[in-house]
Amino acid sequence: MTEIILAGLGQTDVGEHWDISLRDLAFLAIESAIKDAGELKPQALYVGNMLAPNLSRQAHLGALLADFAGLTGIEAVTVEAAGASGGAALRQGYLAVKSGLVDVALVVGVEKMTDVVGAGVEEALATAADSDFESVQGLTPTAQAALLMQRYMHEYRVPADGFAGFALTAHANGAGNPHAMFRKAIKPETYAKAEPLTPPLNMFDAAPNADGAAALVLTRRELLPSDWPHPLVKILASATASDTLALHDRKDPLFFEAAHLATGRAIKQAGITLDQVDFFEYHDAYSIYAALALESSGFAIRGHGWKMAADGRISLTGNLPCATMGGLKARGFAGGATGVYQAVEAATQLRGQAEACQVTRARVGMIQSLGGPASTAVVHILEKLD
Amino acid sequence: MTEIILAGLGQTDVGEHWDISLRDLAFLAIESAIKDAGELKPQALYVGNMLAPNLSRQAHLGALLADFAGLTGIEAVTVEAAGASGGAALRQGYLAVKSGLVDVALVVGVEKMTDVVGAGVEEALATAADSDFESVQGLTPTAQAALLMQRYMHEYRVPADGFAGFALTAHANGAGNPHAMFRKAIKPETYAKAEPLTPPLNMFDAAPNADGAAALVLTRRELLPSDWPHPLVKILASATASDTLALHDRKDPLFFEAAHLATGRAIKQAGITLDQVDFFEYHDAYSIYAALALESSGFAIRGHGWKMAADGRISLTGNLPCATMGGLKARGFAGGATGVYQAVEAATQLRGQAEACQVTRARVGMIQSLGGPASTAVVHILEKLD
Repeated sequence: MTEIILAGLGQTDVGEHWDISLRDLAFLAIESAIKDAGELKPQALYVGNMLAPNLSRQAHLGALLADFAGLTGIEAVTVEAAGASGGAALRQGYLAVKSGLVDVALVVGVEKMTDVVGAGVEEALATAADSDFESVQGLTPTAQAALLMQRYMHEYRVPADGFAGFALTAHANGAGNPHAMFRKAIKPETYAKAEPLTPPLNMFDAAPNADGAAALVLTRRELLPSDWPHPLVKILASATASDTLALHDRKDPLFFEAAHLATGRAIKQAGITLDQVDFFEYHDAYSIYAALALESSGFAIRGHGWKMAADGRISLTGNLPCATMGGLKARGFAGGATGVYQAVEAATQLRGQAEACQVTRARVGMIQSLGGPASTAVVHILEKLD
Repeated sequence: MTEIILAGLGQTDVGEHWDISLRDLAFLAIESAIKDAGELKPQALYVGNMLAPNLSRQAHLGALLADFAGLTGIEAVTVEAAGASGGAALRQGYLAVKSGLVDVALVVGVEKMTDVVGAGVEEALATAADSDFESVQGLTPTAQAALLMQRYMHEYRVPADGFAGFALTAHANGAGNPHAMFRKAIKPETYAKAEPLTPPLNMFDAAPNADGAAALVLTRRELLPSDWPHPLVKILASATASDTLALHDRKDPLFFEAAHLATGRAIKQAGITLDQVDFFEYHDAYSIYAALALESSGFAIRGHGWKMAADGRISLTGNLPCATMGGLKARGFAGGATGVYQAVEAATQLRGQAEACQVTRARVGMIQSLGGPASTAVVHILEKLD
């Protein structure tokens, strides 16, 4: 059985990097991942990016970033699945190494959302939704999430501050992550007093748009040098699924079918049960996404996802720590880079190097990257080897 | 040795489809590829597309097209490498099936370039070049090709009508392809009298922007039903390479290093020599690209690529038929769909179903998909099995 190892990890701080261009951001993450991977020489580059063709007027990132990383000549391509682009790029890197045709793959997620020259950010983000039936009507991703949240609160009789636990957990954890955009814990009052964004969704129910890049080196276990310095972290399972792009095409908008399918496929491939997952990095672009991810993936029964956050069950010392390095909410939402950040963070946890954010005795971590309201879901299960 | 078969082929006509949307175009190609593939059920969809995020304000095509094709739930992702997006999507589909994790993959290339709501087409195409150092100065792909052509003509003392052979060949072949945009042979006088686009490049040196979609079903040979009705065509080799995105970063702009590398890798993987290639589908977005592709791939010595066209050596009865179904010039340039069109056409040749365009006794065909001035090159070698 071929074992695929996360052999090199790199990331930039997440934030508003007005002085760093898209290519330089990606370079910084690639440089540190390659350094972390020692002597391994990448043969292929998979770029997870969503917005550069619009916001930076730049497509063709594969060739550009390979060149800027000093890797001119290697295989290089961009993989796009909206907010799940990072997870999808990791999936393609995994398949390439698994196929045996690529020995060492580099995966980079990069997004530059602030101080950009192209179209407006919200308009660019709306390209993730159905342009002919949703975006054209002015339905932005945030408005869509607010509609979902409203319906959820109505169906399950959730109190006004019912979603506070997601933001509280994210910010508590982000405080310990040196790369996070927001490194300050918040109080319940802060959530309660937050400005509304699109009611009932407030400023603390939505992850902040940010710049950032994260990178990974993947290889097969037998190709690691004999003096490999890091604890071994492997990809135990990789799976993905799709759902309708438009929310109105779903029978039940309060269930993320793609997250359900992808998680089920990954769990089956891993040969484990859900309760063997020690921590879960969900895609909390909005707090309602976090609640639905917990339910659709099988960690909570329907209507109870928000209670896991409210009861502290997703905190670092809870029974299923989530957003352990701050999640999208506090680490920051760097668009198509997000799925790669999740993988770098989960591998850091499994290496036992997460410091203030460390989940004790973590052996198995699940990461879930979503595009739109789970129109795409990509799930990877990572495992620490002895 | 796992053999990957091109099991289903589909394509729409190439042209100005003002009455057909992007999703419907893709659907038509997918529908005919799936029908051609009989009982095979796709588990994954790889979409080759370059311009939809700009021209149709639509990213996230994986989920959208999977849903519209009635395949909601399957793995689905977009692969982008500018004009090479189609070739790159085919490559990812190949790797997925090769890995053993996907049994049946669907690859669709789709582009909608006419009658669109987004930014201008030339501006969108320019996202394939280096935005910070090329596009921002107003250097469009066509202007860039004209500069290359000028330099080539100067270096190698090419006469004014030296490139005519490429357009003459393409249009002669396109006349026999029912899906081609231009189905009319042209005369040398037509080329000589053509309006200049960006001198020395004229209207017949540039492929026309067009709408179109092509689709393929890939699977492993052992998964084909026993009553498989089509001649068997396999992917003998798949390889890709990158080069600098910006032309000014190259030591020698008149050599497509990525095309050289990718072709060399593919030939090595196939275990054949170049003279065993029976026909070559190059990426003639511009006639100068065709000349440089012939030279960089090793079919002509430097400075002699144009002579192969002028001497009739690339015609259907020549020693290396090229653009056998019209190429980008006469079939039409449907952006990121192009690489998939090439594969569908080459497989049609190898099945012996190319009718008026048929290359006699074709057993091995090479297709080469380029992004920008070969900043990305993707090469596949297809072989007819007995």
